[in-house]
Amino acid sequence: MSDRTYDLDRKHVFHSWSAQAQLDPLVITKAAGSYVWDGQGNRLLDFSSQLVYTNLGHQHPRIVKAIQEQAATLCTVAPSYANAARSEAARLIASHTPGDLDRIFFTNGGADANEHAIRMARLHTGRPKVLSTYRSYHGGTQLAVNVTGDPRRWPNDNGSTGTVHFFGPFLYRSAFSATTEEEECERALAHLEQVIVLEGATTIAAVVLESIPGTAGIMIPPPGYLRGVRELCDRHGIMLIADEVMAGFGRAGRWFAIEYGDVVPDLLTFAKGVNSGYVPLGGVALSDAIYQTFAERPYPGGLTYSGHPLACAAAVATIETMEDEDVVGQAAALGTDVLGPGLRELAERHEWIGEVRGVGAFWALELVRDRQSREQLAPYGGSSPEMAAIVAACNRRGLLPMANFNRIHVVPPLTISAAEAREGLEILDQALTEACTA
Amino acid sequence: MSDRTYDLDRKHVFHSWSAQAQLDPLVITKAAGSYVWDGQGNRLLDFSSQLVYTNLGHQHPRIVKAIQEQAATLCTVAPSYANAARSEAARLIASHTPGDLDRIFFTNGGADANEHAIRMARLHTGRPKVLSTYRSYHGGTQLAVNVTGDPRRWPNDNGSTGTVHFFGPFLYRSAFSATTEEEECERALAHLEQVIVLEGATTIAAVVLESIPGTAGIMIPPPGYLRGVRELCDRHGIMLIADEVMAGFGRAGRWFAIEYGDVVPDLLTFAKGVNSGYVPLGGVALSDAIYQTFAERPYPGGLTYSGHPLACAAAVATIETMEDEDVVGQAAALGTDVLGPGLRELAERHEWIGEVRGVGAFWALELVRDRQSREQLAPYGGSSPEMAAIVAACNRRGLLPMANFNRIHVVPPLTISAAEAREGLEILDQALTEACTA
Ligand SMILES: Cc1ncc(COP(=O)(O)O)c(C=O)c1O
Ligand SMILES: Cc1ncc(COP(=O)(O)O)c(C=O)c1O
Repeated sequence: MSDRTYDLDRKHVFHSWSAQAQLDPLVITKAAGSYVWDGQGNRLLDFSSQLVYTNLGHQHPRIVKAIQEQAATLCTVAPSYANAARSEAARLIASHTPGDLDRIFFTNGGADANEHAIRMARLHTGRPKVLSTYRSYHGGTQLAVNVTGDPRRWPNDNGSTGTVHFFGPFLYRSAFSATTEEEECERALAHLEQVIVLEGATTIAAVVLESIPGTAGIMIPPPGYLRGVRELCDRHGIMLIADEVMAGFGRAGRWFAIEYGDVVPDLLTFAKGVNSGYVPLGGVALSDAIYQTFAERPYPGGLTYSGHPLACAAAVATIETMEDEDVVGQAAALGTDVLGPGLRELAERHEWIGEVRGVGAFWALELVRDRQSREQLAPYGGSSPEMAAIVAACNRRGLLPMANFNRIHVVPPLTISAAEAREGLEILDQALTEACTA
Repeated sequence: MSDRTYDLDRKHVFHSWSAQAQLDPLVITKAAGSYVWDGQGNRLLDFSSQLVYTNLGHQHPRIVKAIQEQAATLCTVAPSYANAARSEAARLIASHTPGDLDRIFFTNGGADANEHAIRMARLHTGRPKVLSTYRSYHGGTQLAVNVTGDPRRWPNDNGSTGTVHFFGPFLYRSAFSATTEEEECERALAHLEQVIVLEGATTIAAVVLESIPGTAGIMIPPPGYLRGVRELCDRHGIMLIADEVMAGFGRAGRWFAIEYGDVVPDLLTFAKGVNSGYVPLGGVALSDAIYQTFAERPYPGGLTYSGHPLACAAAVATIETMEDEDVVGQAAALGTDVLGPGLRELAERHEWIGEVRGVGAFWALELVRDRQSREQLAPYGGSSPEMAAIVAACNRRGLLPMANFNRIHVVPPLTISAAEAREGLEILDQALTEACTA
């Protein structure tokens, strides 16, 4: 069975972001809570939450049941109708989004959420350009990948008009020669202001920002940065789009990571955690002002599966579970009590760990060859034998980490137990030792 | 319950392609086979298949069961792994796609399928431009909507570089002053050749074509047209992308509508019918040549939910049902035995019907004020009191038709019974009479 799965995969499945002939995919046959099982029956602790989306872990009984019940009742209706699961999901999401972001446009995932949020901002302002940071990821469709600031943009960058990149704050590798958080914050804001002025404020529809950049490195913005960006946007009539696709829905120990900045964006995009990825779902939450732009004038965008009942039913079960079991509080505590201290302890023992960054269930180890020079253990946009060795050693010991360039991300389900998290940290400890001495 | 659904929808749900304050959505609470039920308990015959995607009707027990079982086993794994449902779905799809289109890249819907197919063609050829027809729809994301040839493009058209539109064949409103199918075919091909030459063949990555244009009017290409396009593409090294999102998976009485042209495209995009839309799913089938381009060089594209197990399990059940029950044959027979004759009969009684077009479960009535002048009953890109009256009269009598500008499309589930189809035709007959004499 597992052999057949593997063979058919190699014969017929084309995989994302990969050279197809070089792939040797692990077959996954089963999953439960914080664990998955491979084709040989080996159990692996999932420190990746797949692609940082199974926030409530695998096969959560309440979400499974909600999907099964919705499937029995009504799998699908077109977006133009009203439907109980969709209405309820929109209500629940709106009850947690900041400020007046009370209208929900549903999409299938994160990329199309950002595509539509950008379109809304462009039409609302009548301006063409979008500013986004280097070291960011906003999705794989053409506009979303051109807004993206990570290397996934390069092969798709046809000089797409209207996307401009600036530097966000990242003290460990400061683009501003800053040496303190305060300096980094101040200089990053001054830089953004310069970019706005020199690009021409009246040409800029939106600043798109991951509230905490995820795949690009989990760089927590310094205090005051998000507020500063909000003020710049207000001063220049620019819409602030918070991309909460990865950081949102409890991942960072708050419902939305933008709460740390205590500001309200004009548009907020989400996916992944909204329903733990059990059914494809994403969306945009709109401010009332942007909603009003499309009250009497049609919004020129849509998709066949907007507000899909099965996906919405999974969201309702996910959000209700998060409320009932204080999953957001659990994630916050996981960060302060287990992952933060545990990873800092690792840093004491492993020279490769240049920095430990994170919050909640959202952590990164920045790995370097040398703490002084901060030379990366793998180049930007690439990998290295050392990084491959760490991942392989983790896998052998029963751990699925997330690796990106010179970083290992520790992004387990928010519901992982302290014991499971410590088990994972221990494996990571051993894997770092093994790879370092190899 | 239904009131709460309506109220929450109005408060929190932002709808596709609409002026939000002008909406008054029907609440749908239940569905089965060819019928849906509204909030007042009224039963409506679904002649729209929602957005032309519930090809096996509503709540098909085999698909529902497959979703429930997959939900119980494994709701989700990341795209990088191999998984039984995904492998099996890819195998089944590849077994029906034409020629050597045996590799499947999964997406969430039709728009991202087209976005990725275009990217593959661009990278494979190293050329920037994409040619597509006016009177077409390819999706709502920025690139897909700019490739689109229908009015949904206009508000999103920032002079997006690299998308060029040409005229496809449409004898009833010929762009070439043709009077016969043969003339239309010949002139449409000559026109496309001119566009290729004058745009510069070496700048063109792909021609994107709905094998039978759907929302834009169900214009069956004249015999020889698709073969002619294939030959032009071959002569100039241009990739042919067949968009089978709406026409594919049996809708037109063949597994794929391109079969009528007896040609093999280089890329084929699908969604909707692949799993009757029970879970969001779309994808691209790639030729071996294009696959080889990404064998050793990474394909720079992807998405979190590529090959989602729940969506793939629904596809497996859908395709197996279609095979076991010869649903494609059923759809073909529905066209020749019931819908074709029935709609032509309507045309004899209703002056407004200027043309009846279609095949399988895929039909359009082109409505005109005057058969001589062919003046449309509603303008291109707009509606009219007459069109609104027809739809309202259908709804009142228990029928959900699909309306677009001056057309009524008859696109029921492929599994609709002859008796149900006749019931729908009768209601349409009455509605046309009522609206015409109003
Ligand atoms: C911050 C962020 N935005 C957008 C996306 C794109 O989401 P999707 O893969 O569902 O299109 C991702 C995916 O990882 C993400 O992390
Ligand atoms: C021919 C065609 N292509 C693409 C699409 C876009 O599909 P989706 O709405 O799933 O993005 C549609 C949707 O109606 C379509 O009919």
